[in-house]
Amino acid sequence: MKKSETHLAQEIGAKARLAARALSLCSTASKNQWLKQTAERLPQATEGIMQANARDLASAANAGMGSAQLDRLRLDPARIGSMAKSLEEIALLEDPVGRVISSTVRPNGLVVKKTGVPLGVIFFIYESRPNVTVDAGALAIKSGNAIILRGGKEALHSNLALVGVLRSGLAEAGIPLDAIQLIDNPDRKIVGDLLTRNDLVDLVIPRGGEELIRRVSQEARMPVMKHYRGNCHVYVETTADMEMAIQIIINAKCQRPGVCNAAESLLVDREIAPRVIPRLVGALQSQGVEIRGCQETCLLATGVVKAVEGDFSEEYLDKIISLKVVEGIDEAMEHIARYGSGHTEAILTQNPQAAERFTQCVDSAAVMVNASTRFNDGGELGLGAEIGISTDKYHARGPCGLNELTSYKYVILGKGQVRE
Amino acid sequence: MKKSETHLAQEIGAKARLAARALSLCSTASKNQWLKQTAERLPQATEGIMQANARDLASAANAGMGSAQLDRLRLDPARIGSMAKSLEEIALLEDPVGRVISSTVRPNGLVVKKTGVPLGVIFFIYESRPNVTVDAGALAIKSGNAIILRGGKEALHSNLALVGVLRSGLAEAGIPLDAIQLIDNPDRKIVGDLLTRNDLVDLVIPRGGEELIRRVSQEARMPVMKHYRGNCHVYVETTADMEMAIQIIINAKCQRPGVCNAAESLLVDREIAPRVIPRLVGALQSQGVEIRGCQETCLLATGVVKAVEGDFSEEYLDKIISLKVVEGIDEAMEHIARYGSGHTEAILTQNPQAAERFTQCVDSAAVMVNASTRFNDGGELGLGAEIGISTDKYHARGPCGLNELTSYKYVILGKGQVRE
Repeated sequence: MKKSETHLAQEIGAKARLAARALSLCSTASKNQWLKQTAERLPQATEGIMQANARDLASAANAGMGSAQLDRLRLDPARIGSMAKSLEEIALLEDPVGRVISSTVRPNGLVVKKTGVPLGVIFFIYESRPNVTVDAGALAIKSGNAIILRGGKEALHSNLALVGVLRSGLAEAGIPLDAIQLIDNPDRKIVGDLLTRNDLVDLVIPRGGEELIRRVSQEARMPVMKHYRGNCHVYVETTADMEMAIQIIINAKCQRPGVCNAAESLLVDREIAPRVIPRLVGALQSQGVEIRGCQETCLLATGVVKAVEGDFSEEYLDKIISLKVVEGIDEAMEHIARYGSGHTEAILTQNPQAAERFTQCVDSAAVMVNASTRFNDGGELGLGAEIGISTDKYHARGPCGLNELTSYKYVILGKGQVRE
Repeated sequence: MKKSETHLAQEIGAKARLAARALSLCSTASKNQWLKQTAERLPQATEGIMQANARDLASAANAGMGSAQLDRLRLDPARIGSMAKSLEEIALLEDPVGRVISSTVRPNGLVVKKTGVPLGVIFFIYESRPNVTVDAGALAIKSGNAIILRGGKEALHSNLALVGVLRSGLAEAGIPLDAIQLIDNPDRKIVGDLLTRNDLVDLVIPRGGEELIRRVSQEARMPVMKHYRGNCHVYVETTADMEMAIQIIINAKCQRPGVCNAAESLLVDREIAPRVIPRLVGALQSQGVEIRGCQETCLLATGVVKAVEGDFSEEYLDKIISLKVVEGIDEAMEHIARYGSGHTEAILTQNPQAAERFTQCVDSAAVMVNASTRFNDGGELGLGAEIGISTDKYHARGPCGLNELTSYKYVILGKGQVRE
């Protein structure tokens, strides 16, 4: 008899809850042992992983998936090697569980320690490349959280093979097997059921398109760590160094156009627009970037597509960028407040006052001065691997690594103190 | 024509959103000026506040409110004076906005600063005493957040008078007036409407009975900082110092029985039960505390009410306590995991290994060793004033003061760095 999906959600969640409690007490040594052994096992399992991946690739090609997406789905020995490397790197990071966040002694002699603890059970719903499966599992275990994985159906066999390797070493390291579970049942009802179970799931992380995130946010009865749009701006202030500006803008737009911290919109100060815009547009066009410009931009440079209102809200995730001439820093910040998504904004300037004002007033997860928006990334900011870049302000903002997957408790050591 | 409530929610939320943006840029000096001036103005306004309070008291008495609750509602010059004192204390606390949480230099020379920022707009729904109105307004302003207050209808006139004083000095200090708004319309639909507006409200804090918190959690489309039950345990381990144990237990239960960090359940190790329980029960009974004990307790002491299963889950908020004999530390921790609410737990022991194990394994916001559960409090733990004690693990856990009402952003200072 086939199990009902409601029952299945209950079963998966209850197993995760039980595993989380045991995992929260696992030593750093156990967790690191598992990470290092899994880093060795992954390359050894290359053949099986690639066979599973071949099944996914064949189905996807049959279903008419485009070549860029097929490439994202494809695994090869080099990609499997870099997953293993990621595991080794996570083993080297400080264990966030039990870390002392602060320690003070109160006037009455009480010792108050704030120490890191896991959140519990994380439900991770993602549409990304299969390497995310390995990163998410590793980050969860190291941060002491049980994780329930729900990957995209196009990557199901690849994910099953990868999770098989992840799970194979858990028992040996003294970590409960159900600390990592993959939902392989395609029924979406299981997801909906789990989203109502705030008794079994402590946090849900949807990572994928806007529709997925909106649906999860609507249905979830537990906190949601969201990864919304990155409509990232670069503002070229009057004192910007032009050579630097061109390098940063090309990097921010072109180094990897399909990611959330790529630049999507340029703002150029009117004072320097006649001098700057023709060069900037030329440099971008030489990289194959389409420019959607405001009226002034169109007058100053050739080959610019006239922008419509919607262009300034767009997250292109492609070699397209909007460009607007602004009156000064205030109009730039107004524009960002209106059209931005609070992800990553940069100012290019040699004026320290302008930099100060911009970093103080712009309310985004990362505000850059004279650096590429592409630096808003866990690895680049020193957090190590990340499970994503949060666009929320509550709990964790920007890149989310190990610490962001934890909570804390107060441990209070007394000698008989009572309250007056 | 009367404004529709939907329109009113939109209007209040939009005003708060606008105010929040300006408030986020207000200087520490402005915010402290307002706090200090309001601390002076409150006592000067005593007469008006007490007249308003008299109206609330008269209505409440007519409606049959009990004397304990009437006392909670009552304001007098001393209570108004301590509200003013609280404002002065908040003025002395460090401004969480702009504080540097961490600062590192990356290998490529990027300077990465993590700095405190306000959350934005806080919607605070509370059923508490009128002094909470003043604390909440002060904590919000100092942490750079606009606040929408919705107090209990029994305190409406008192709250209107207090908010009048709070608002009277805002403009003078350069703080937008709508940074503090009180919803005086009794219609509950406004609350429901605001709870759907995650574009206008960043955080909702319900503080009151379980029904309120459940309703808000169900309806809110934005993060909720919850203040659920405190079913707090004290476990008397075999090596506990008996004099200390009695003092701590009396303090934890009796110093203020109606609050969330009061002890509600005692666990006594079987090894010491025959010696300890008669004394403990006697000491509690001499303070007028009713004991609801397990079978063994009933055999060991007189005047004990036989506990039913439900007693171990109960948050009495009264001079009643449950008492259970347990086999050892593991059974104690099992019991806490099963019946506890994750609020505050204490172990009384002279054995450092037992203390270590208890503090590591018990997953509560505060875990005490040889100290009263009553210390789980913002003031006592050094956070200053608090808006409440969170029972969530996400974002903030335990006492929530100024820092817990903020988020952060990364400010990244470069010299032209681009990503490889």
